[in-house]
Amino acid sequence: MKALIILSNPQSEASFCGAIAATAADVLRAAGADVVVHDLYAENFDPNLTTEELKKSLDELDGSIRKSIDELFAADVLVFVHPNWWGMPPANMVGWISRVVRQGVCYRFTEKGPEGFLGGKKTFVFTTANTPADIEEKFNHDPIRNLWTNIVANTVNLDDVTYVNFTSIILSDDQQRKAWLEEVKTIVSNAVK
Amino acid sequence: MKALIILSNPQSEASFCGAIAATAADVLRAAGADVVVHDLYAENFDPNLTTEELKKSLDELDGSIRKSIDELFAADVLVFVHPNWWGMPPANMVGWISRVVRQGVCYRFTEKGPEGFLGGKKTFVFTTANTPADIEEKFNHDPIRNLWTNIVANTVNLDDVTYVNFTSIILSDDQQRKAWLEEVKTIVSNAVK
Repeated sequence: MKALIILSNPQSEASFCGAIAATAADVLRAAGADVVVHDLYAENFDPNLTTEELKKSLDELDGSIRKSIDELFAADVLVFVHPNWWGMPPANMVGWISRVVRQGVCYRFTEKGPEGFLGGKKTFVFTTANTPADIEEKFNHDPIRNLWTNIVANTVNLDDVTYVNFTSIILSDDQQRKAWLEEVKTIVSNAVK
Repeated sequence: MKALIILSNPQSEASFCGAIAATAADVLRAAGADVVVHDLYAENFDPNLTTEELKKSLDELDGSIRKSIDELFAADVLVFVHPNWWGMPPANMVGWISRVVRQGVCYRFTEKGPEGFLGGKKTFVFTTANTPADIEEKFNHDPIRNLWTNIVANTVNLDDVTYVNFTSIILSDDQQRKAWLEEVKTIVSNAVK
C-alpha cells in the first residue's frame, strides 16, 4: 500500500495541520503503507503554472512535478491537509492542484464531460478553520467541500473522498485538539483496515 | 478617480484576460481615472503568505504588499481578471488575496461576524472559462461567483460587485471575443459615468 500526504500550512509541522498530517502518516505506516509526505511550505513549492509548463509533454516536465504525478498515480491513499483561507486552500496547495493534477494526464475532456484517471483510491481531506461550521455551510456554501468532493473529485474521478473540517482552531484547547487527532486516527485507520 | 486592476493569466497581455484588463484600463483612463494595473504573472508575484508575514505589523510589511494595500484602499474602482481553474483563480491571485487583503487591515472579526473596511467601491470581476455556464452553475455551484460576490465581498464589505464570466474561451472565435470586449467596455463605462 502506498500513501501520499500533501500538507499546506505556513507553520508546517508546528501547526495543527502538521499534527493531522503526522497522525495520518503514523496510522498509515502502522498499517504497512509506504508513505510520502510533501510539506509544500517547507519544500518552498512554486505554485505558478506557466505557459511554458502548459505546453510541455509529460517527459519534459520539471522533475519534481513529474515525480509528484507518479506518486499521485501510485498512491492507494491520498491525504490533503490545509487551513481554510477565503474558502480555498493556501496558494501553494491551489498551485499544486494546477501543476500536478494535469489535464491530459489525470483527466481529459470528452463530449460527455471530464473523464478522470484517478479512480480506486481512498482520499481524505482534513481542513482547519475558525469560521463556525454552520456559517461555513449556510452562508459560505461550504466551498472547500465543493472543491474537493465535487469539482476535483468529479474531474479526476476520485470516487471515495472523506472530508472533515475542524473548527474553531483559535477557540480550541489542548483537550479538544487531542480529541480531533483521535478522530483523524480513527477515520484513517478504519479506511485502511 | 482611482482604479486598481489585478490580472492573473500565465499569458499576461497576450491572453483574453489581458485584453479584458486592457479594455477596462482604457475605459477607466478615458473617464479620467488614475489606473494602476498589476499583472501578477509578469510581476512574478510571490503568492505564499508566511508565518513571518502574518506576524508583521502594517509598517513592517514588504514594500510591494504595503503599496498594494494603499492602492486597494485608495481605489474607487477595482477590477479583477482571471481564468477559472478548478473553480478558483490561479494561485498567484489566491495568494494576492491572502497577502494583500489582510485581517486587521481590510477587515476584522467581531462577535457579530466580519467587519469590512472596503465599502464604497465599484468592483468588477471578469473571468474566463471553458466549462459551459449551466454546468458551472448547476454542478460546480458557481464557485468563483461565491468567492468574490459572497465570501470576499461580505468579509471586507465590497458592497457593489459585478461578476461576469466569459465562456467558452476555447470555442470562441474572433467575432465572439470582440463582442465580449464590447460588453466589458459597456459594463465598465456605465459604472463610471
